[in-house]
Amino acid sequence: MNSILVVGSVAYDTISTPSGHRDRVLGGSANYFSVAASRFAPVRVVGVVGDDYNPEHLQLIESRGVDMRGLQQVPGKTFAWSGKYENDMNEAVTLATHLNVFENFHPAIPVEYRDSDIVFLANIDPVLQMQVLEQVKKPKLVAADTMNYWIHSKKADLLRMLERIDVLLINEGELQQLTGCWNTIQGVREVLKMGPKCAVIKRGEYGFVMYHDEKYLILPAFPIADVVDPTGAGDTFAGGFLGTLAQSNQPWNRDVFRAACVNGCLLASFTVQDFGLDRLLKVSPDQLQERLLAYGRVIS
Amino acid sequence: MNSILVVGSVAYDTISTPSGHRDRVLGGSANYFSVAASRFAPVRVVGVVGDDYNPEHLQLIESRGVDMRGLQQVPGKTFAWSGKYENDMNEAVTLATHLNVFENFHPAIPVEYRDSDIVFLANIDPVLQMQVLEQVKKPKLVAADTMNYWIHSKKADLLRMLERIDVLLINEGELQQLTGCWNTIQGVREVLKMGPKCAVIKRGEYGFVMYHDEKYLILPAFPIADVVDPTGAGDTFAGGFLGTLAQSNQPWNRDVFRAACVNGCLLASFTVQDFGLDRLLKVSPDQLQERLLAYGRVIS
Repeated sequence: MNSILVVGSVAYDTISTPSGHRDRVLGGSANYFSVAASRFAPVRVVGVVGDDYNPEHLQLIESRGVDMRGLQQVPGKTFAWSGKYENDMNEAVTLATHLNVFENFHPAIPVEYRDSDIVFLANIDPVLQMQVLEQVKKPKLVAADTMNYWIHSKKADLLRMLERIDVLLINEGELQQLTGCWNTIQGVREVLKMGPKCAVIKRGEYGFVMYHDEKYLILPAFPIADVVDPTGAGDTFAGGFLGTLAQSNQPWNRDVFRAACVNGCLLASFTVQDFGLDRLLKVSPDQLQERLLAYGRVIS
Repeated sequence: MNSILVVGSVAYDTISTPSGHRDRVLGGSANYFSVAASRFAPVRVVGVVGDDYNPEHLQLIESRGVDMRGLQQVPGKTFAWSGKYENDMNEAVTLATHLNVFENFHPAIPVEYRDSDIVFLANIDPVLQMQVLEQVKKPKLVAADTMNYWIHSKKADLLRMLERIDVLLINEGELQQLTGCWNTIQGVREVLKMGPKCAVIKRGEYGFVMYHDEKYLILPAFPIADVVDPTGAGDTFAGGFLGTLAQSNQPWNRDVFRAACVNGCLLASFTVQDFGLDRLLKVSPDQLQERLLAYGRVIS
């Protein structure tokens, strides 16, 4: 069993979708990721919150067995995002981003986290992603995500970061921005030249494209008629993906990477069925297993 | 072995894509469909061309064993479409549609076609689609396509047509327009209430969703890095799909419907690799078989 370190955001999200509106629900990449990944393996979180952070939210994540000793609490307000989804649930429209305490965040990796086997750099500033890598000892695998904001504003830093990672998990639209390729298959080829050995392209309701060990794995998402809120689906995918790798002993072959993608995809299919973390937190092992069997029938 | 009747357009297309420009290449739904379907089963075409139609184009399609006795030649010009694709190859921008001889087209089904086992109503006016059904004798299966133009301008006729068919093949964007559902899974549920027992939703580079016998089959497209011209991909899919059904003896179970979708999907992946019918016409049985094996590896 391998341990996972995640460095990412902890946030309060205000979300409008065709299904409704929610104010300040618990969110952030580190939370979605760790709730998903902790089903499979020990997870350690590094992040920052403000003095408005509800202690019950800390306990909620800790109750999943997640190690939160690396979550700094500092004066000020917790990172807050607000956004809406219109009919096309594949794309969020950002209404406001208040970095708040995240603005001066510098990840300090606790000594007891430095031997983590797997490191996930969620979509924070690539300069901070690099700072994390300077503090950890030879992880077996480093994975990262990024987002349109960093692709536009810190491309050079992002490219340096990409040289140092094993797996890039990225949205299809962001792959286009990063590579300039409209064709996803071409985009994958280009992104692999930038450093990562493995790329996982997240396609929302269309599923994912993984390129690993010179082979593709392309599969659809689990069919969901009642998509309520897609926020966090990508980070949930990453959590299910890396959690599954962490749970498995090496060598991580095709079968393990396939199971990792499928678990990521299926956990994300739960996340979108309610606002914030609500549905993901309630997924029982039986429900995940049942969906795995149903998914097998959908694609065969 | 079952016979297939297709009623659709025969056209000259002028196409611009990021890969280049072509003037007046042979196109039209009936041509793409019959070239694809005739690999598997006997195909009979009903359509209309003008006096500008190149006899070599007629011979080209006939040379595939397609029965073209139902293709009327009348004074005037052949249907001509011109369009362009920009970076997003999933969507054509129509620059001009000259219906020409198609404007006064009334499908006359030759007596020797009336016992066809399978009927494909390509995306022509739903009033004409109904006229076809009035002329044929109890086919084993009727499939139809439609398009945004008819959804907007002849919705009532279209709904009457849908009540009389077994399988609807439709683009994802057109499914949204027809049902008002942005979610494809919801859209499938709605469209099944309109009549068809089976729906096949074509998703371009994302593959397809089939609903048949109360079960989904959802699979991606074959990965193609060099998409040159997507024109005709949907009609190629329909041809591969119905050709495969026609080739098989009933009962048409899940396995046959799955093979039908996969053949449609794979033939379409060839069509997009060159302008017009150029690539599709050159696909050897070995090449199709090789791509089938490669596809199996991509999704497993």
